[in-house]
Amino acid sequence: MYRSHNCGELRAADANKEVKLAGWVQKSRDKGFMIWVDLRDRYGITQLIFDEARTDATIMQQAKSLGREFVIQVTGTVIERESKNANIPTGDIEVLVTELSILNEAQVPPFTIEDETDGGEDIRMKYRYLDIRRNPVKNNLLFRHNVTQEVRNYLSSLDFCEVETPYLIKSTPEGARDFVVPSRMNPGQFYALPQSPQTFKQLLMVAGMDRYFQIVKCFRDEDLRADRQPEFTQIDCEMSFIEQEDILQVFEGLTRHLLKKIHDIDIDAFPRMTFDEAMRRFGNDKPDIRFGMEFGELNRVAQHKDFGIFNTAELVVGIAVPGAASYTRKQIDELIDWVKRPQIGASGMVYCKCESDGSFKSSVDKFFDQEDLKKWASATGAQTGDLILVLSGPAFKTRTQLSALRMELANRLGLRKPNEFSPLWVIDFPLLEWDEETGRYHAMHHPFTSPKKEDIHLLDTDPGKVRANAYDLVLNGNEIGGGSIRIHDKETQALMFKHLGFTEEQAQEQFGFLMNAFQYGAPPHGGLAFGLDRLTAILGGQETIRDFIAFPKNNAGRDVMIDAPAAIDSAQLEELNIDLRASK
Amino acid sequence: MYRSHNCGELRAADANKEVKLAGWVQKSRDKGFMIWVDLRDRYGITQLIFDEARTDATIMQQAKSLGREFVIQVTGTVIERESKNANIPTGDIEVLVTELSILNEAQVPPFTIEDETDGGEDIRMKYRYLDIRRNPVKNNLLFRHNVTQEVRNYLSSLDFCEVETPYLIKSTPEGARDFVVPSRMNPGQFYALPQSPQTFKQLLMVAGMDRYFQIVKCFRDEDLRADRQPEFTQIDCEMSFIEQEDILQVFEGLTRHLLKKIHDIDIDAFPRMTFDEAMRRFGNDKPDIRFGMEFGELNRVAQHKDFGIFNTAELVVGIAVPGAASYTRKQIDELIDWVKRPQIGASGMVYCKCESDGSFKSSVDKFFDQEDLKKWASATGAQTGDLILVLSGPAFKTRTQLSALRMELANRLGLRKPNEFSPLWVIDFPLLEWDEETGRYHAMHHPFTSPKKEDIHLLDTDPGKVRANAYDLVLNGNEIGGGSIRIHDKETQALMFKHLGFTEEQAQEQFGFLMNAFQYGAPPHGGLAFGLDRLTAILGGQETIRDFIAFPKNNAGRDVMIDAPAAIDSAQLEELNIDLRASK
Repeated sequence: MYRSHNCGELRAADANKEVKLAGWVQKSRDKGFMIWVDLRDRYGITQLIFDEARTDATIMQQAKSLGREFVIQVTGTVIERESKNANIPTGDIEVLVTELSILNEAQVPPFTIEDETDGGEDIRMKYRYLDIRRNPVKNNLLFRHNVTQEVRNYLSSLDFCEVETPYLIKSTPEGARDFVVPSRMNPGQFYALPQSPQTFKQLLMVAGMDRYFQIVKCFRDEDLRADRQPEFTQIDCEMSFIEQEDILQVFEGLTRHLLKKIHDIDIDAFPRMTFDEAMRRFGNDKPDIRFGMEFGELNRVAQHKDFGIFNTAELVVGIAVPGAASYTRKQIDELIDWVKRPQIGASGMVYCKCESDGSFKSSVDKFFDQEDLKKWASATGAQTGDLILVLSGPAFKTRTQLSALRMELANRLGLRKPNEFSPLWVIDFPLLEWDEETGRYHAMHHPFTSPKKEDIHLLDTDPGKVRANAYDLVLNGNEIGGGSIRIHDKETQALMFKHLGFTEEQAQEQFGFLMNAFQYGAPPHGGLAFGLDRLTAILGGQETIRDFIAFPKNNAGRDVMIDAPAAIDSAQLEELNIDLRASK
Repeated sequence: MYRSHNCGELRAADANKEVKLAGWVQKSRDKGFMIWVDLRDRYGITQLIFDEARTDATIMQQAKSLGREFVIQVTGTVIERESKNANIPTGDIEVLVTELSILNEAQVPPFTIEDETDGGEDIRMKYRYLDIRRNPVKNNLLFRHNVTQEVRNYLSSLDFCEVETPYLIKSTPEGARDFVVPSRMNPGQFYALPQSPQTFKQLLMVAGMDRYFQIVKCFRDEDLRADRQPEFTQIDCEMSFIEQEDILQVFEGLTRHLLKKIHDIDIDAFPRMTFDEAMRRFGNDKPDIRFGMEFGELNRVAQHKDFGIFNTAELVVGIAVPGAASYTRKQIDELIDWVKRPQIGASGMVYCKCESDGSFKSSVDKFFDQEDLKKWASATGAQTGDLILVLSGPAFKTRTQLSALRMELANRLGLRKPNEFSPLWVIDFPLLEWDEETGRYHAMHHPFTSPKKEDIHLLDTDPGKVRANAYDLVLNGNEIGGGSIRIHDKETQALMFKHLGFTEEQAQEQFGFLMNAFQYGAPPHGGLAFGLDRLTAILGGQETIRDFIAFPKNNAGRDVMIDAPAAIDSAQLEELNIDLRASK
């Protein structure tokens, strides 16, 4: 037995016990006649003491040789400390060492194993196995484990059955790019790694499994944006004999359960907001509602004056930034530059200060008098001391720009509090979205998403207005889950394909497999998938998913720790019946 | 809401309730004036009744149109049945239907959705989504879910943390063949799918995670034998600061927990048997100890007579088949033919009947008298009425042959009872095994497996005799788990590589990555992995893993349901910088 206790559990009540501990040397302080060593393992830190007066000389000598991150095992007696350390749970005691064994020496690590390390992102990723020794990373992984355990226990208690679906499946031309796997046994043929178990979960509903879930890796070969991973984890769920309301109830319940278990936070029924409302009020289909700065539409009060830019705009819209009337010209100019950056793309921004004396001071005073500006304040909910920022232009684009500005300001003002949680459902998403490139409508979710019955008649006349039985669960400005009620009857499916511009042959070719299965008695069904990486990060009060993944890849899709991907040898290529193309 | 109850929950106490049910038509009986329909969902079957005297004529007509596997929704009143059906939990009631809605029609399924179906393996796999509607398959999937939940809860309660390791990793030349994934973003380079998370779990120990587990898919591109899958699931575990005994305790605990929770079976401490003992007593390193027929070595009592075949054999060994003295000459000849098949490869078999009058009758009576044969009976533990079967030849080969015969006879005699569970540990595996092909020793487990300290001195003189800290958990004649204590110090590792015939350069090239990580303070660690597919099958009283996988592949590695693998289009190949080789 290597240890009688771990490094996080000894207390004053254990005084005088003989114990055996093992772990890593966090640090040591050598006063010559006395040496203290902080011994660390996953569970905590325990202070060891070596004392010339009480410790064997050989051990004393050995203790002096200990370097950072050495792995050691000690036997000793628990003694109550004279000067206690209230910062750590074991701070009341220390262990007077009587036996010391160096289990493994360690080279000096390339960065310090401390909560705040001196290692940059790159070096930490290369030595991720050392990075994980640091509390913040280690705790994130433990936290993720707790989240998944709670998810599994909750869903299992509701009769959901976790079913493993295959990883070696078939490539489909629709959607994002697949990772593929050449088959040695079937020359010239390839498996694909699943982008999601969508088809299989729908088949499991046809199969009568009724309530399915799976915490499962998914793969997308996309050009990686910051904080995207080629492999990511979903909590994938599907239910039969349900309507949208049933799904919302179950997964609202799951989210409430997580918030309660993990943060002891009670949240009542989640607000629900239609897609249209979310866009109107927040310019965003995943609004962060932890703070205000809601959009005020100003068309009525700001158009038909002499300010041509507003007059020709489809939408004039503003937000009131709390307490920002005091911003200097320089600060405001910086904000104007910020929205004019290509990533945001506004052509300019109008502002109006709500001064403490009740007056207004705007960048367009030439065109708007105090009465006009008062109406702006009223439309944006601005109070004395606030700064109104106004954008104008095409409606969708302008909303998106103002939403980006709203989030930026919220970050700067510290309004996005990591330990405050404001979930909501965004519902009634459009069924279709217009694709400029192909000049036709595409399914916004996927072609099996069901339209709202009452909107089906609009498919012929105004397809963009048809709403879907599709919903997103939004938490603190992030989409953490989304799904839909699926089409399960032939007639609606045929109608959908027609409106998506598929011929019957094309539909059969691309989706024939699932459609055929549906002919054997598909139940009404629908589901939802959570992004586990993001869900965990947000529940953990953070936004970077990489910090919640044990061995993440970088933005080039590389694992810098193991140096993958890498070349493989020619014999392997030959067996797989493939050749590399000559580089161009 | 599609239903107020599921099809498995109504009881006599629900009589007179108005209920809403939904499900599939299992079957219907039409007596003209009365129609009964068995409505099925995942949870059970409820009988619906349509009665001319009480049911609306339109609904009556609709009910007549219902085909097998139609998906319907009904509203009705629960009534107590006159003739109850004790075979199903809902057998006391039926539902008198007042409203009927056909949610989806169904084509006639290609095989009957019954416990005993008329569909063969191939057709059931092609329509797996219908096969899963059958109770035996559905129950296997639910059973698997329960097993994984119990595993996760048990390990979590012991502070094990489930960590997801990456699926897109790096190909390694050692071991089985990797599946590889061409990287589009890194032309000419490939990821590999993990054969197991071995490296990552050891890195997690270096990272201080202390107790790790993961239920995880693994991939091996091997020529598939019956009941092997290219993707399979492991319960992968690793612990730090432990010795072999700690691992055995924890995972014996897990197995005991599963047997208790799933079958309410209490099992005391698992027997432990060394590899040598298992081979000697059962000719097999995964002995089925639910029954006897232990090996009796006969060298001492059967050699040095005039029977040359025995005299020149390294080993003469027999088993006593209970009650088989009554076998006819034909039956015995069939057994002799059985062991002479190329799959077994014995050149012949000697038998001896233990007759009811206490005499012995053998096929070698010419060479052995009654006194000799009595010694055979004593060595094999044969009783009156038993049949002793004896093989001879090179020790390892002969044991393997006799073990196959023992298992075959146990199957025939019904001694392998599916609901009896006899786990045991097989320990002290050899560290090295001789490879005829390369003419050198290979690591039996893997090169990081630690040798027993007391055997290290044999590495130079008798390497085949060195035992490893390696162990298998065996259940009912199947290896369900296996693992080892790893080497964590440089000196032993260097010694191992030397004896495995690696130069320092080769060792660095193939294992450098992990060895480098070890330099930063590796704790003593070890672990084990269970094969979840097999574990579940055996706990479920079966041996075919395919029956416990939702969507298995066939022996050619194909998913016949989705028809994968398949060709991909040339644009995809181009993006991936690969070409297909012209077929040879």
